Amino acid sequence: MKLATIRTEAGTRAARLEDNTYTLIGKYQDVGELLSEQNWQDLAAQASGETLPAAEAEVAQLINRPGKVVCVGLNYRGHILEMGRDLPSHPTLFAKYAETLTGPYDDIVYTPEDPELDWEGELVAVIGKTVRRASEEEADQAIAGYTIADDISMRGWQFRTKEWLQGKIWEASTPLGPVLSTPDEVDLSTAELLTQVNGEVMQQHSIGDLLFTPPHLVSYISTILPLHPGDVILTGTPGGVGRARDPQVYLKPGDTVTVSIDGIGEIRNSIVEAV
Amino acid sequence: MKLATIRTEAGTRAARLEDNTYTLIGKYQDVGELLSEQNWQDLAAQASGETLPAAEAEVAQLINRPGKVVCVGLNYRGHILEMGRDLPSHPTLFAKYAETLTGPYDDIVYTPEDPELDWEGELVAVIGKTVRRASEEEADQAIAGYTIADDISMRGWQFRTKEWLQGKIWEASTPLGPVLSTPDEVDLSTAELLTQVNGEVMQQHSIGDLLFTPPHLVSYISTILPLHPGDVILTGTPGGVGRARDPQVYLKPGDTVTVSIDGIGEIRNSIVEAV
Repeated sequence: MKLATIRTEAGTRAARLEDNTYTLIGKYQDVGELLSEQNWQDLAAQASGETLPAAEAEVAQLINRPGKVVCVGLNYRGHILEMGRDLPSHPTLFAKYAETLTGPYDDIVYTPEDPELDWEGELVAVIGKTVRRASEEEADQAIAGYTIADDISMRGWQFRTKEWLQGKIWEASTPLGPVLSTPDEVDLSTAELLTQVNGEVMQQHSIGDLLFTPPHLVSYISTILPLHPGDVILTGTPGGVGRARDPQVYLKPGDTVTVSIDGIGEIRNSIVEAV
Repeated sequence: MKLATIRTEAGTRAARLEDNTYTLIGKYQDVGELLSEQNWQDLAAQASGETLPAAEAEVAQLINRPGKVVCVGLNYRGHILEMGRDLPSHPTLFAKYAETLTGPYDDIVYTPEDPELDWEGELVAVIGKTVRRASEEEADQAIAGYTIADDISMRGWQFRTKEWLQGKIWEASTPLGPVLSTPDEVDLSTAELLTQVNGEVMQQHSIGDLLFTPPHLVSYISTILPLHPGDVILTGTPGGVGRARDPQVYLKPGDTVTVSIDGIGEIRNSIVEAV
Protein backbone atom coordinates (compact mmCIF):
# COMPACT_ATOMS: atom_id res chain seq x y z
CA MET A 1 0.00 0.00 0.00
CA LYS A 2 1.16 3.53 -0.81
CA LEU A 3 -0.12 6.53 1.13
CA ALA A 4 0.41 10.22 0.45
CA THR A 5 -0.65 13.63 1.69
CA ILE A 6 -2.24 15.69 -1.08
CA ARG A 7 -3.36 19.30 -1.31
CA THR A 8 -7.11 19.79 -1.77
CA GLU A 9 -9.30 22.89 -1.67
CA ALA A 10 -10.22 21.97 1.90
CA GLY A 11 -6.56 21.74 2.95
CA THR A 12 -4.23 18.76 2.90
CA ARG A 13 -5.62 15.21 3.17
CA ALA A 14 -4.24 11.71 3.61
CA ALA A 15 -4.88 9.51 0.57
CA ARG A 16 -4.18 6.01 -0.75
CA LEU A 17 -2.44 5.81 -4.13
CA GLU A 18 -3.30 2.96 -6.46
CA ASP A 19 -3.61 2.60 -10.24
CA ASN A 20 -2.59 6.25 -10.67
CA THR A 21 -5.52 7.40 -8.55
CA TYR A 22 -5.60 8.96 -5.08
CA THR A 23 -8.51 7.99 -2.79
CA LEU A 24 -9.00 10.29 0.20
CA ILE A 25 -8.93 8.60 3.62
CA GLY A 26 -11.57 10.21 5.86
CA LYS A 27 -10.74 13.69 7.08
CA TYR A 28 -7.13 12.98 8.11
CA GLN A 29 -5.08 16.05 7.27
CA ASP A 30 -1.91 14.14 6.58
CA VAL A 31 -0.40 10.69 6.81
CA GLY A 32 0.98 11.60 10.24
CA GLU A 33 -2.50 12.16 11.64
CA LEU A 34 -3.71 8.91 10.06
CA LEU A 35 -0.84 6.96 11.65
CA SER A 36 -1.97 8.06 15.10
CA GLU A 37 -4.99 5.73 14.68
CA GLN A 38 -4.21 2.21 15.89
CA ASN A 39 -6.11 0.73 12.93
CA TRP A 40 -4.58 3.05 10.33
CA GLN A 41 -3.87 0.12 8.01
CA ASP A 42 -7.54 -0.91 7.87
CA LEU A 43 -8.70 2.70 7.56
CA ALA A 44 -6.31 3.25 4.66
CA ALA A 45 -7.04 -0.04 2.91
CA GLN A 46 -10.84 0.33 3.20
CA ALA A 47 -11.14 4.02 2.33
CA SER A 48 -13.53 4.55 -0.57
CA GLY A 49 -13.98 8.33 -0.51
CA GLU A 50 -13.39 11.00 -3.10
CA THR A 51 -10.83 10.14 -5.80
CA LEU A 52 -8.41 12.24 -7.82
CA PRO A 53 -6.32 11.21 -10.85
CA ALA A 54 -2.61 11.22 -9.94
CA ALA A 55 -1.84 13.54 -12.84
CA GLU A 56 -4.04 16.25 -11.31
CA ALA A 57 -2.98 15.84 -7.69
CA GLU A 58 -0.56 18.14 -5.91
CA VAL A 59 1.45 16.11 -3.42
CA ALA A 60 2.34 17.76 -0.09
CA GLN A 61 4.94 16.96 2.55
CA LEU A 62 4.11 13.41 3.73
CA ILE A 63 3.98 14.25 7.44
CA ASN A 64 3.08 17.78 8.29
CA ARG A 65 4.49 18.21 11.79
CA PRO A 66 6.30 15.08 13.00
CA GLY A 67 6.89 15.06 16.75
CA LYS A 68 10.49 14.09 16.11
CA VAL A 69 12.85 14.01 13.17
CA VAL A 70 15.91 11.90 14.02
CA CYS A 71 18.76 11.71 11.51
CA VAL A 72 21.67 9.32 11.12
CA GLY A 73 25.13 10.13 9.78
CA LEU A 74 27.78 7.77 8.36
CA ASN A 75 25.62 4.73 7.73
CA TYR A 76 26.68 3.18 4.39
CA ARG A 77 29.49 0.61 4.72
CA GLY A 78 30.98 1.25 1.30
CA HIS A 79 31.18 4.99 1.85
CA ILE A 80 32.69 4.68 5.33
CA LEU A 81 35.34 2.21 4.15
CA GLU A 82 36.18 4.20 0.99
CA MET A 83 36.80 7.21 3.23
CA GLY A 84 39.38 5.11 5.08
CA ARG A 85 37.41 5.03 8.33
CA ASP A 86 36.65 2.08 10.58
CA LEU A 87 33.04 0.92 10.79
CA PRO A 88 31.53 2.64 13.87
CA SER A 89 30.08 0.67 16.78
CA HIS A 90 27.16 3.05 17.25
CA PRO A 91 25.05 5.18 14.92
CA THR A 92 25.78 8.92 14.85
CA LEU A 93 22.54 10.82 15.53
CA PHE A 94 21.50 14.41 14.92
CA ALA A 95 18.16 16.21 14.78
CA LYS A 96 15.99 18.31 12.51
CA TYR A 97 12.97 20.42 13.41
CA ALA A 98 9.50 20.16 11.90
CA GLU A 99 9.89 23.57 10.17
CA THR A 100 12.90 22.17 8.31
CA LEU A 101 10.75 19.81 6.21
CA THR A 102 9.04 20.64 2.93
CA GLY A 103 7.05 18.95 0.16
CA PRO A 104 8.49 16.36 -2.26
CA TYR A 105 8.22 18.67 -5.29
CA ASP A 106 8.55 22.07 -3.59
CA ASP A 107 11.23 24.60 -4.44
CA ILE A 108 14.20 24.96 -2.11
CA VAL A 109 15.30 28.52 -1.42
CA TYR A 110 19.00 29.19 -2.02
CA THR A 111 20.19 30.50 1.34
CA PRO A 112 21.91 33.87 0.95
CA GLU A 113 23.93 33.26 4.14
CA ASP A 114 25.48 29.97 2.94
CA PRO A 115 26.19 29.25 -0.75
CA GLU A 116 27.27 25.64 -0.06
CA LEU A 117 23.99 23.71 -0.51
CA ASP A 118 24.66 19.99 -0.91
CA TRP A 119 22.43 16.98 -1.61
CA GLU A 120 22.04 13.86 0.57
CA GLY A 121 19.50 11.34 -0.76
CA GLU A 122 18.14 9.17 2.05
CA LEU A 123 15.76 6.35 2.91
CA VAL A 124 13.37 7.39 5.69
CA ALA A 125 11.63 5.05 8.15
CA VAL A 126 8.25 6.27 9.43
CA ILE A 127 7.01 5.13 12.84
CA GLY A 128 3.48 3.67 13.09
CA LYS A 129 3.35 2.56 16.74
CA THR A 130 4.65 3.92 20.06
CA VAL A 131 7.73 2.01 21.25
CA ARG A 132 10.25 2.37 24.07
CA ARG A 133 13.29 0.13 24.54
CA ALA A 134 12.05 -2.00 21.64
CA SER A 135 13.85 -5.18 20.59
CA GLU A 136 14.74 -5.30 16.88
CA GLU A 137 11.68 -7.51 16.29
CA GLU A 138 9.37 -5.02 18.06
CA ALA A 139 11.11 -2.18 16.23
CA ASP A 140 10.51 -3.86 12.89
CA GLN A 141 6.80 -4.11 13.71
CA ALA A 142 6.71 -0.41 14.69
CA ILE A 143 7.81 0.78 11.23
CA ALA A 144 4.72 1.88 9.28
CA GLY A 145 6.72 2.11 6.08
CA TYR A 146 9.35 3.98 4.15
CA THR A 147 9.69 7.25 2.28
CA ILE A 148 12.44 9.46 0.82
CA ALA A 149 14.17 12.65 1.96
CA ASP A 150 16.85 14.88 0.55
CA ASP A 151 18.80 16.02 3.60
CA ILE A 152 19.94 19.21 1.87
CA SER A 153 22.82 20.51 3.95
CA MET A 154 24.29 23.97 4.20
CA ARG A 155 27.93 22.88 4.44
CA GLY A 156 29.38 26.24 5.44
CA TRP A 157 27.27 26.45 8.58
CA GLN A 158 27.41 22.68 9.16
CA PHE A 159 31.15 22.89 9.68
CA ARG A 160 31.29 26.23 11.53
CA THR A 161 31.40 24.18 14.74
CA LYS A 162 31.82 20.53 15.72
CA GLU A 163 28.06 19.96 15.90
CA TRP A 164 26.37 19.65 12.49
CA LEU A 165 22.92 20.92 13.53
CA GLN A 166 23.13 24.49 12.23
CA GLY A 167 23.77 23.27 8.68
CA LYS A 168 20.92 20.77 8.83
CA ILE A 169 17.86 22.71 10.00
CA TRP A 170 17.25 25.59 7.58
CA GLU A 171 13.60 26.39 7.05
CA ALA A 172 11.84 24.24 4.40
CA SER A 173 15.10 22.69 3.17
CA THR A 174 14.44 18.93 3.58
CA PRO A 175 11.84 17.56 1.14
CA LEU A 176 9.95 14.49 2.42
CA GLY A 177 7.80 12.11 0.36
CA PRO A 178 6.26 11.48 -2.10
CA VAL A 179 4.56 8.46 -0.50
CA LEU A 180 4.73 6.16 2.47
CA SER A 181 5.30 2.68 1.06
CA THR A 182 4.37 -0.05 3.53
CA PRO A 183 7.23 -2.50 4.18
CA ASP A 184 5.84 -5.12 1.75
CA GLU A 185 6.34 -2.60 -1.10
CA VAL A 186 10.10 -2.10 -0.56
CA ASP A 187 12.79 -4.79 -0.70
CA LEU A 188 15.49 -3.18 1.43
CA SER A 189 18.06 -5.76 0.36
CA THR A 190 17.84 -4.93 -3.35
CA ALA A 191 16.32 -1.43 -3.61
CA GLU A 192 18.64 1.20 -5.06
CA LEU A 193 18.90 4.86 -4.07
CA LEU A 194 19.61 7.22 -6.97
CA THR A 195 20.34 10.95 -6.64
CA GLN A 196 20.64 13.10 -9.79
CA VAL A 197 21.41 16.77 -10.25
CA ASN A 198 20.13 18.19 -13.57
CA GLY A 199 19.95 14.57 -14.78
CA GLU A 200 23.54 13.68 -13.86
CA VAL A 201 23.89 10.69 -11.52
CA MET A 202 25.50 11.74 -8.24
CA GLN A 203 24.60 8.93 -5.83
CA GLN A 204 23.70 5.37 -6.86
CA HIS A 205 23.85 2.85 -4.10
CA SER A 206 22.12 -0.24 -2.73
CA ILE A 207 20.02 0.28 0.39
CA GLY A 208 21.25 -3.20 1.41
CA ASP A 209 24.64 -1.62 2.22
CA LEU A 210 23.18 0.20 5.26
CA LEU A 211 25.34 -0.57 8.30
CA PHE A 212 22.61 0.12 10.88
CA THR A 213 19.29 -1.17 9.48
CA PRO A 214 15.99 0.62 10.09
CA PRO A 215 14.88 -1.89 12.79
CA HIS A 216 18.27 -1.51 14.50
CA LEU A 217 17.96 2.29 14.43
CA VAL A 218 14.40 2.23 15.81
CA SER A 219 15.51 -0.10 18.60
CA TYR A 220 18.57 2.05 19.38
CA ILE A 221 16.73 5.39 19.40
CA SER A 222 13.82 3.95 21.42
CA THR A 223 16.31 3.08 24.15
CA ILE A 224 16.83 6.81 24.63
CA LEU A 225 13.26 8.08 24.35
CA PRO A 226 9.88 6.89 23.10
CA LEU A 227 9.12 6.92 19.39
CA HIS A 228 5.55 7.78 18.40
CA PRO A 229 3.43 7.41 15.25
CA GLY A 230 4.49 9.95 12.65
CA ASP A 231 8.06 10.30 13.98
CA VAL A 232 10.55 9.95 11.14
CA ILE A 233 14.09 8.61 10.98
CA LEU A 234 16.40 9.67 8.16
CA THR A 235 18.76 6.72 7.81
CA GLY A 236 21.84 8.41 6.32
CA THR A 237 23.29 9.00 2.85
CA PRO A 238 25.71 6.96 0.71
CA GLY A 239 28.82 8.34 -1.02
CA GLY A 240 28.66 10.86 -3.83
CA VAL A 241 27.77 14.12 -2.09
CA GLY A 242 29.00 17.39 -3.60
CA ARG A 243 31.37 18.29 -0.80
CA ALA A 244 33.35 15.05 -1.19
CA ARG A 245 34.01 15.68 -4.91
CA ASP A 246 37.19 17.16 -6.32
CA PRO A 247 36.51 19.97 -7.06
CA GLN A 248 33.58 20.36 -4.68
CA VAL A 249 30.16 20.86 -6.29
CA TYR A 250 27.25 22.71 -4.71
CA LEU A 251 23.64 23.31 -5.74
CA LYS A 252 22.84 26.72 -7.22
CA PRO A 253 19.67 28.49 -8.32
CA GLY A 254 18.23 26.81 -11.42
CA ASP A 255 19.46 23.32 -10.46
CA THR A 256 17.01 20.45 -10.04
CA VAL A 257 17.86 17.56 -7.73
CA THR A 258 15.97 14.26 -7.68
CA VAL A 259 16.18 11.31 -5.30
CA SER A 260 14.49 8.01 -6.10
CA ILE A 261 14.29 4.66 -4.31
CA ASP A 262 12.83 1.50 -5.87
CA GLY A 263 9.42 0.70 -4.43
CA ILE A 264 8.82 4.24 -3.19
CA GLY A 265 9.15 6.74 -6.03
CA GLU A 266 10.97 10.01 -6.59
CA ILE A 267 11.22 13.45 -5.07
CA ARG A 268 12.24 16.37 -7.30
CA ASN A 269 13.17 19.84 -6.10
CA SER A 270 14.44 22.96 -7.81
CA ILE A 271 16.75 25.45 -6.18
CA VAL A 272 15.44 29.02 -6.48
CA GLU A 273 16.76 32.45 -5.55
CA ALA A 274 15.36 33.98 -2.38
CA VAL A 275 12.77 36.62 -3.28
CA MET B 1 6.16 39.41 36.31
CA LYS B 2 6.64 35.70 37.04
CA LEU B 3 4.57 33.05 35.29
CA ALA B 4 4.41 29.32 35.96
CA THR B 5 2.55 26.21 34.89
CA ILE B 6 0.91 24.48 37.84
CA ARG B 7 -0.89 21.18 38.23
CA THR B 8 -4.60 21.45 39.12
CA GLU B 9 -7.36 18.84 39.30
CA ALA B 10 -8.48 19.97 35.85
CA GLY B 11 -4.98 19.48 34.40
CA THR B 12 -2.10 21.93 34.15
CA ARG B 13 -2.78 25.68 34.00
CA ALA B 14 -0.77 28.83 33.36
CA ALA B 15 -0.61 31.08 36.44
CA ARG B 16 0.91 34.36 37.60
CA LEU B 17 3.05 34.17 40.76
CA GLU B 18 3.07 37.10 43.16
CA ASP B 19 3.22 37.47 46.94
CA ASN B 20 3.54 33.69 47.30
CA THR B 21 0.22 33.17 45.52
CA TYR B 22 -0.57 31.71 42.11
CA THR B 23 -3.44 33.28 40.14
CA LEU B 24 -4.73 31.16 37.26
CA ILE B 25 -4.70 32.83 33.83
CA GLY B 26 -7.86 31.79 31.93
CA LYS B 27 -7.88 28.24 30.68
CA TYR B 28 -4.36 28.22 29.22
CA GLN B 29 -2.89 24.80 29.87
CA ASP B 30 0.68 26.01 30.18
CA VAL B 31 2.81 29.09 29.73
CA GLY B 32 3.58 27.94 26.18
CA GLU B 33 -0.08 28.13 25.18
CA LEU B 34 -0.41 31.53 26.86
CA LEU B 35 2.59 32.88 24.93
CA SER B 36 0.88 32.05 21.64
CA GLU B 37 -1.55 34.94 22.36
CA GLN B 38 -0.22 38.23 21.01
CA ASN B 39 -1.43 40.08 24.14
CA TRP B 40 -0.09 37.47 26.60
CA GLN B 41 1.44 40.14 28.79
CA ASP B 42 -1.91 41.90 29.32
CA LEU B 43 -3.73 38.59 29.81
CA ALA B 44 -1.19 37.54 32.43
CA ALA B 45 -1.06 40.91 34.21
CA GLN B 46 -4.84 41.31 34.35
CA ALA B 47 -5.76 37.73 35.29
CA SER B 48 -7.89 37.67 38.45
CA GLY B 49 -9.08 34.06 38.48
CA GLU B 50 -8.77 31.30 41.03
CA THR B 51 -5.82 31.60 43.42
CA LEU B 52 -3.65 29.05 45.19
CA PRO B 53 -1.07 29.58 47.95
CA ALA B 54 2.42 28.84 46.61
CA ALA B 55 3.04 26.36 49.43
CA GLU B 56 0.15 24.19 48.21
CA ALA B 57 0.88 24.40 44.49
CA GLU B 58 2.58 21.69 42.49
CA VAL B 59 4.66 23.29 39.76
CA ALA B 60 4.83 21.55 36.38
CA GLN B 61 7.20 21.84 33.45
CA LEU B 62 6.99 25.48 32.33
CA ILE B 63 6.27 24.73 28.66
CA ASN B 64 4.60 21.47 27.96
CA ARG B 65 5.48 20.81 24.32
CA PRO B 66 7.73 23.51 22.89
CA GLY B 67 7.87 23.47 19.10
CA LYS B 68 11.64 23.65 19.31
CA VAL B 69 14.31 23.22 21.98
CA VAL B 70 17.60 24.67 20.76
CA CYS B 71 20.70 24.25 22.94
CA VAL B 72 24.05 26.01 22.96
CA GLY B 73 27.41 24.49 23.93
CA LEU B 74 30.62 26.26 25.00
CA ASN B 75 29.23 29.68 25.83
CA TYR B 76 30.95 30.95 29.00
CA ARG B 77 34.16 32.89 28.32
CA GLY B 78 35.87 31.92 31.56
CA HIS B 79 35.22 28.23 31.04
CA ILE B 80 36.38 28.26 27.39
CA LEU B 81 39.58 30.13 28.25
CA GLU B 82 40.37 27.98 31.31
CA MET B 83 40.08 24.91 29.06
CA GLY B 84 42.82 26.47 26.91
CA ARG B 85 40.55 26.99 23.90
CA ASP B 86 40.16 30.04 21.72
CA LEU B 87 36.86 31.91 21.90
CA PRO B 88 34.70 30.57 19.04
CA SER B 89 33.37 32.83 16.28
CA HIS B 90 29.98 31.09 16.19
CA PRO B 91 27.76 29.42 18.76
CA THR B 92 27.71 25.61 18.80
CA LEU B 93 24.10 24.41 18.51
CA PHE B 94 22.44 21.10 19.28
CA ALA B 95 18.84 20.00 19.82
CA LYS B 96 16.56 18.36 22.32
CA TYR B 97 13.09 16.92 21.79
CA ALA B 98 9.92 17.87 23.68
CA GLU B 99 9.83 14.43 25.39
CA THR B 100 13.24 15.17 26.89
CA LEU B 101 11.86 17.89 29.18
CA THR B 102 10.39 17.38 32.66
CA GLY B 103 9.12 19.41 35.62
CA PRO B 104 11.32 21.64 37.82
CA TYR B 105 10.94 19.39 40.88
CA ASP B 106 10.38 16.01 39.19
CA ASP B 107 12.56 12.98 39.79
CA ILE B 108 15.11 12.06 37.13
CA VAL B 109 15.38 8.35 36.37
CA TYR B 110 18.91 6.94 36.55
CA THR B 111 19.42 5.46 33.08
CA PRO B 112 20.45 1.81 33.32
CA GLU B 113 22.19 2.02 29.92
CA ASP B 114 24.50 4.90 30.90
CA PRO B 115 25.75 5.44 34.47
CA GLU B 116 27.44 8.77 33.64
CA LEU B 117 24.70 11.32 34.43
CA ASP B 118 26.16 14.81 34.71
CA TRP B 119 24.68 18.21 35.61
CA GLU B 120 24.68 21.36 33.47
CA GLY B 121 22.90 24.34 35.04
CA GLU B 122 21.68 26.76 32.36
CA LEU B 123 19.84 30.02 31.77
CA VAL B 124 17.00 29.52 29.27
CA ALA B 125 15.50 32.18 26.98
CA VAL B 126 11.81 31.68 26.11
CA ILE B 127 10.46 33.09 22.84
CA GLY B 128 7.30 35.24 22.96
CA LYS B 129 6.96 36.38 19.35
CA THR B 130 7.59 34.84 15.91
CA VAL B 131 10.84 36.11 14.37
CA ARG B 132 12.91 35.27 11.29
CA ARG B 133 16.26 36.87 10.46
CA ALA B 134 15.81 39.16 13.45
CA SER B 135 18.31 41.89 14.26
CA GLU B 136 19.63 41.79 17.84
CA GLU B 137 17.17 44.55 18.74
CA GLU B 138 14.22 42.61 17.27
CA ALA B 139 15.53 39.46 18.92
CA ASP B 140 15.67 41.18 22.30
CA GLN B 141 12.01 42.19 21.88
CA ALA B 142 11.08 38.60 20.97
CA ILE B 143 12.29 37.17 24.30
CA ALA B 144 9.29 36.70 26.61
CA GLY B 145 11.56 36.03 29.56
CA TYR B 146 13.96 33.65 31.22
CA THR B 147 13.82 30.36 33.05
CA ILE B 148 16.22 27.62 34.23
CA ALA B 149 17.12 24.16 32.94
CA ASP B 150 19.43 21.41 34.08
CA ASP B 151 20.75 19.93 30.84
CA ILE B 152 21.41 16.57 32.46
CA SER B 153 23.71 14.73 30.08
CA MET B 154 24.42 11.04 29.71
CA ARG B 155 28.14 11.38 29.07
CA GLY B 156 28.76 7.80 27.96
CA TRP B 157 26.33 8.05 25.06
CA GLN B 158 27.15 11.73 24.43
CA PHE B 159 30.69 10.78 23.50
CA ARG B 160 29.95 7.50 21.68
CA THR B 161 30.10 9.53 18.45
CA LYS B 162 31.14 13.03 17.37
CA GLU B 163 27.59 14.35 17.60
CA TRP B 164 26.39 14.97 21.17
CA LEU B 165 22.67 14.42 20.56
CA GLN B 166 22.30 10.87 21.87
CA GLY B 167 23.55 11.88 25.34
CA LYS B 168 21.26 14.93 25.45
CA ILE B 169 17.77 13.65 24.66
CA TRP B 170 16.87 10.93 27.17
CA GLU B 171 13.20 10.88 28.11
CA ALA B 172 12.23 13.30 30.93
CA SER B 173 15.85 14.15 31.76
CA THR B 174 15.92 17.97 31.38
CA PRO B 175 13.96 19.82 34.09
CA LEU B 176 12.59 23.21 32.98
CA GLY B 177 11.22 25.94 35.26
CA PRO B 178 10.13 26.85 37.85
CA VAL B 179 8.91 30.18 36.41
CA LEU B 180 9.20 32.43 33.41
CA SER B 181 10.62 35.71 34.71
CA THR B 182 9.98 38.59 32.33
CA PRO B 183 13.20 40.42 31.33
CA ASP B 184 12.66 43.24 33.86
CA GLU B 185 12.95 40.65 36.68
CA VAL B 186 16.44 39.40 35.73
CA ASP B 187 19.62 41.48 35.53
CA LEU B 188 21.68 39.39 33.12
CA SER B 189 24.83 41.39 33.87
CA THR B 190 24.87 40.57 37.60
CA ALA B 191 22.71 37.44 38.06
CA GLU B 192 24.59 34.39 39.28
CA LEU B 193 24.00 30.77 38.29
CA LEU B 194 24.52 28.28 41.13
CA THR B 195 24.45 24.48 40.78
CA GLN B 196 24.66 22.29 43.89
CA VAL B 197 24.71 18.51 44.31
CA ASN B 198 23.56 17.37 47.75
CA GLY B 199 24.25 20.92 48.95
CA GLU B 200 27.80 21.07 47.62
CA VAL B 201 28.49 23.96 45.22
CA MET B 202 29.49 22.63 41.79
CA GLN B 203 28.90 25.60 39.47
CA GLN B 204 28.86 29.25 40.54
CA HIS B 205 29.22 31.74 37.75
CA SER B 206 28.02 35.11 36.55
CA ILE B 207 25.51 35.07 33.68
CA GLY B 208 27.31 38.23 32.51
CA ASP B 209 30.19 36.02 31.33
CA LEU B 210 28.05 34.57 28.51
CA LEU B 211 29.97 34.91 25.23
CA PHE B 212 26.86 34.81 22.99
CA THR B 213 24.07 36.74 24.73
CA PRO B 214 20.42 35.66 24.52
CA PRO B 215 19.55 38.37 21.92
CA HIS B 216 22.57 37.35 19.85
CA LEU B 217 21.50 33.68 20.01
CA VAL B 218 17.90 34.47 19.04
CA SER B 219 19.14 36.58 16.12
CA TYR B 220 21.59 33.84 15.02
CA ILE B 221 19.11 30.96 15.25
CA SER B 222 16.35 32.97 13.56
CA THR B 223 18.64 33.36 10.55
CA ILE B 224 18.34 29.60 10.06
CA LEU B 225 14.62 29.07 10.74
CA PRO B 226 11.72 30.90 12.36
CA LEU B 227 11.41 30.99 16.14
CA HIS B 228 7.88 30.85 17.52
CA PRO B 229 6.23 31.62 20.88
CA GLY B 230 7.06 28.87 23.36
CA ASP B 231 10.29 27.83 21.67
CA VAL B 232 13.12 27.64 24.20
CA ILE B 233 16.85 28.24 23.94
CA LEU B 234 19.21 26.70 26.50
CA THR B 235 22.13 29.11 26.55
CA GLY B 236 24.95 26.81 27.71
CA THR B 237 26.62 25.89 30.99
CA PRO B 238 29.63 27.39 32.82
CA GLY B 239 32.58 25.38 34.21
CA GLY B 240 32.22 22.90 37.04
CA VAL B 241 30.51 19.91 35.44
CA GLY B 242 31.21 16.45 36.85
CA ARG B 243 33.01 15.10 33.82
CA ALA B 244 35.64 17.87 33.94
CA ARG B 245 36.56 17.07 37.57
CA ASP B 246 39.51 14.95 38.62
CA PRO B 247 38.37 12.34 39.49
CA GLN B 248 35.19 12.59 37.45
CA VAL B 249 31.94 12.77 39.44
CA TYR B 250 28.55 11.57 38.22
CA LEU B 251 25.04 11.71 39.66
CA LYS B 252 23.72 8.52 41.26
CA PRO B 253 20.42 7.42 42.74
CA GLY B 254 19.72 9.33 45.96
CA ASP B 255 21.51 12.50 44.83
CA THR B 256 19.66 15.81 44.63
CA VAL B 257 20.80 18.50 42.22
CA THR B 258 19.64 22.11 42.35
CA VAL B 259 20.18 24.98 39.92
CA SER B 260 19.30 28.55 40.86
CA ILE B 261 19.58 31.89 39.07
CA ASP B 262 18.98 35.27 40.72
CA GLY B 263 15.65 36.76 39.68
CA ILE B 264 14.20 33.44 38.55
CA GLY B 265 14.34 30.89 41.37
CA GLU B 266 15.52 27.31 41.77
CA ILE B 267 14.89 23.90 40.26
CA ARG B 268 15.52 20.82 42.41
CA ASN B 269 15.61 17.24 41.16
CA SER B 270 16.40 13.89 42.75
CA ILE B 271 17.95 11.00 40.89
CA VAL B 272 15.98 7.78 41.38
CA GLU B 273 16.47 4.15 40.35
CA ALA B 274 14.44 2.97 37.37
CA VAL B 275 11.49 0.89 38.59
